[in-house]
Amino acid sequence: MSDTFGSFERKVPPGDTHERLVCNDCGFILYENPKLVVGSVCEWSGRILLCKRSIEPRAGYWTIPAGFMEKGETTTQGAEREAWEEARAKIEIDSLLGIYNIPRISQVQLLYRARLLSPDVAVGEETREVRLFEWDDIPWDELAFPSVSWVLHCFDSVRGQEMFVPFEKDDTARRLDDDRRR
Amino acid sequence: MSDTFGSFERKVPPGDTHERLVCNDCGFILYENPKLVVGSVCEWSGRILLCKRSIEPRAGYWTIPAGFMEKGETTTQGAEREAWEEARAKIEIDSLLGIYNIPRISQVQLLYRARLLSPDVAVGEETREVRLFEWDDIPWDELAFPSVSWVLHCFDSVRGQEMFVPFEKDDTARRLDDDRRR
Repeated sequence: MSDTFGSFERKVPPGDTHERLVCNDCGFILYENPKLVVGSVCEWSGRILLCKRSIEPRAGYWTIPAGFMEKGETTTQGAEREAWEEARAKIEIDSLLGIYNIPRISQVQLLYRARLLSPDVAVGEETREVRLFEWDDIPWDELAFPSVSWVLHCFDSVRGQEMFVPFEKDDTARRLDDDRRR
Repeated sequence: MSDTFGSFERKVPPGDTHERLVCNDCGFILYENPKLVVGSVCEWSGRILLCKRSIEPRAGYWTIPAGFMEKGETTTQGAEREAWEEARAKIEIDSLLGIYNIPRISQVQLLYRARLLSPDVAVGEETREVRLFEWDDIPWDELAFPSVSWVLHCFDSVRGQEMFVPFEKDDTARRLDDDRRR
């Protein structure tokens, strides 16, 4: 049974414009589409919530609460869920900070600005430490992903602004080495 | 071989928080996530491009060029591709008009404002007619989806504005009957 996936073939279904994985037995078409990551920069009295990852990739590095959106939820519900799962944080989404595209890995990140409803945060799943950082104390050399640094600067540049146009960034770097991640 | 998919079981993998489809033989985890639709309201001298659908769902009804984002592209590249595929339209994306969430079907739509680079449009795949409509001529009773009507009104409300905050809508209607679609 280990060849279960051998019955799939990559071909263009009738009327389609792209190659898909099609089951040779039953005709089932497996559509593979980009995945959405939802997350938020969460603030409490000017301080920003970061989580130290306990899992790969980038275990031991700091990130904002974010993760893959799940079926049946909205983008803001997903960002709220991630804040709870990773930092036991109750938040209120404020506005969309930015859209970060990573076509290399078919990922789209929708990153929001949020207010913590309380400073009581705690280690959650996939996290080994949580902390509220003053801007000047953010561990820039220990951030997990380029999008984290990017969105933190977006956040800072519209601090105090109620309304703003969300930022957009296409990360078209071909690969991530340690320098580029920071 | 029609029981090929019978070897998958819905369960929570170790360290996960959600049920997934897991292969009992090889442990492969099939993550099912929401899908992204990308599209655009395309303008030429105040007129708006609409496409009459030739395929289900909603064949014979009008829509903006939009469709499922493909792997390896950015959100704006996807919207440009859809404009070409459905209306042979060359466009320039201007800014994000809105985010339309439909959690019932696990779909997120990112809808942009765009300029047509030329009024030369033509029937493409999945389309039986294309037309540039003056605002007052838009066939409101023959639009394919609620999000089309919604985003057209978003477009109109920021006409002439260079910068604006994108609109957000969560479509939490439980089902779509003909009245709600319009």
